Amino acid sequence: MTHRIAVIPGDGIGGEVVPAAIEVLEALDLGFEFVDGEAGDYVKEERGEALPQETYDLAAEADATLFGAAGETAADVILPLREAVDSFANVRPARAYPGVDAVKPATDLVFVRENTEGVYAGIEDDLTDDVTTLTRLITESASRRIAEFGFEYAEANGFSDVTVAHKANVMRKTDGRFLEACEAVAGEGDYEYDEALMDALAMHLIMHPEDYGVVICPNLAGDMLSDLAAGLVGGLGLLPSANIGPDNALFEPVHGSAPDIAGEGIANPAAMILSAAMMLDHMGYGGEATQVRDAVTAVLEDGPRTPDLGGDASTADVTEAVLDAL
Amino acid sequence: MTHRIAVIPGDGIGGEVVPAAIEVLEALDLGFEFVDGEAGDYVKEERGEALPQETYDLAAEADATLFGAAGETAADVILPLREAVDSFANVRPARAYPGVDAVKPATDLVFVRENTEGVYAGIEDDLTDDVTTLTRLITESASRRIAEFGFEYAEANGFSDVTVAHKANVMRKTDGRFLEACEAVAGEGDYEYDEALMDALAMHLIMHPEDYGVVICPNLAGDMLSDLAAGLVGGLGLLPSANIGPDNALFEPVHGSAPDIAGEGIANPAAMILSAAMMLDHMGYGGEATQVRDAVTAVLEDGPRTPDLGGDASTADVTEAVLDAL
Ligand SMILES: CC(C)[C@H](C(=O)O)[C@@H](O)C(=O)O
Ligand SMILES: CC(C)[C@H](C(=O)O)[C@@H](O)C(=O)O
Repeated sequence: MTHRIAVIPGDGIGGEVVPAAIEVLEALDLGFEFVDGEAGDYVKEERGEALPQETYDLAAEADATLFGAAGETAADVILPLREAVDSFANVRPARAYPGVDAVKPATDLVFVRENTEGVYAGIEDDLTDDVTTLTRLITESASRRIAEFGFEYAEANGFSDVTVAHKANVMRKTDGRFLEACEAVAGEGDYEYDEALMDALAMHLIMHPEDYGVVICPNLAGDMLSDLAAGLVGGLGLLPSANIGPDNALFEPVHGSAPDIAGEGIANPAAMILSAAMMLDHMGYGGEATQVRDAVTAVLEDGPRTPDLGGDASTADVTEAVLDAL
Repeated sequence: MTHRIAVIPGDGIGGEVVPAAIEVLEALDLGFEFVDGEAGDYVKEERGEALPQETYDLAAEADATLFGAAGETAADVILPLREAVDSFANVRPARAYPGVDAVKPATDLVFVRENTEGVYAGIEDDLTDDVTTLTRLITESASRRIAEFGFEYAEANGFSDVTVAHKANVMRKTDGRFLEACEAVAGEGDYEYDEALMDALAMHLIMHPEDYGVVICPNLAGDMLSDLAAGLVGGLGLLPSANIGPDNALFEPVHGSAPDIAGEGIANPAAMILSAAMMLDHMGYGGEATQVRDAVTAVLEDGPRTPDLGGDASTADVTEAVLDAL
């Protein structure tokens, strides 16, 4: 069976790291069909909208989507694309690699972020000249769904520490509901977990990341805590992510379009290639996923390095080294 | 003129570190009148409410309040107390001290956190069996007020880097309004600043804290980012804070009641004593404030240390060393 993969490079370094990931996938010879889609600042300039309907449909209908990055229009592109694949879970591993300078080398975390609601529900109003409101939406159904996904993910991937992040001492009813849903799911599945206030967790993750494994979070907490973890492992150039829906999924690096280095051919392709590895895993190619991850790990340890990691190699050099290591 | 200081130790180590701070203040002989108030878990157990009206009134009427910590009832105590002193600004310095093991020794940050609204407005509803909402409130007036305070604070304290944290790419109208207010105030006062998405900022603060100075934040972002900074400098035992209102103010350590070590006499009093120094500054005793800060700094550098900093000294040992160093 041929898998149809939507490929949306987007802006800036997206156009450099996505082709690198495709090269790696093609080397595995799995018979994927890649179909290109357009989105991002450059599309907005040309056509007045950052995410054309055809690109939305492409992602919605593909078996999986690889997305690079978008610039100023990032939110206009990625939020609808996440919706296009009906992705309720955003999975963000943050792992320190041997040989890469990390603030905390013992970091090996996976954030499982609720991906559909919270402050991302998009309900805002200017009530008066002075007052603006945003409605933070938390549902029991979405909270249960992310909890089920998170506990199962932890079990399937051998993590023994599961933490539920929240701020239920202030957001009593909304995060209270989130917490209750996690508690109910844990009870039904006989899962163990700890809960942590997200502010205290931010501190503890920095001081003792080795004490944590999978962190299940409401949407915005997951956004912040996963970027925090990027800081612990040496930056966004290393963090892949998966947006998982019931029938399809979208894979993207956590980094953005990096306009400061775009066009120079020196972007670190690791996060994008690791995102492709997450796609392989998701599609049932676990062996190949491990092969790709091992190759990237080997190159990070003693292969060529892009400038973000203190080297002077190009995107092409690193990609070639990964292909050699496969 | 005698200053009337409300003293609310609260729960756990609050009852150990607050007396330490009072000892230091008494040694300065400024003729303060200290009036005790009760709040916290133990009060809730005895009387059914964590914050009796008389304690609320005491804080509201005092010239300044010293608060220790509360346990399970923390939110029920501190949020109303902040309101009692009408505190619109929460000032949280996070500084690494020579001799104290810090993840990032170059950290010298001050978070200026909006203290009255955002998700802390307390407006939540269970709409259906499935749906719960929270209304995040952002007003132009409160945003302007915190921006004015933040820019003036940075100028008065010699910080050249000011950053406004936000998530206006997602919370477009609410954080959009916050950002616009900051921009307007900066324009009127000819202040310079950068803006940063709070997720990206979390990462950058960990990797390069030396690039930042004062960070002006909406309420929850300030809560998280200041705890993150605590992680960078070696934990909550070192972070003081001020809740500033137009006529009075409340000073508290960022740490909580630490039930795990409460009653052992080994709590680090530094954050509480440094909070008292912030009070001295606020009341116009700048020389004495500097004296206290210098004494604490000297003790942190080569005096006795409590267990949280790897030593085996008691709260009393550290307090005595600070008194000697005054
Ligand atoms: C671009 C933005 C909307 C997005 C988010 O907040 O989810 C980004 O920060 C991320 O984490 O992927
Ligand atoms: C106890 C809690 C309500 C409080 C807050 O969220 O403000 C605490 O985390 C703090 O930062 O002082």
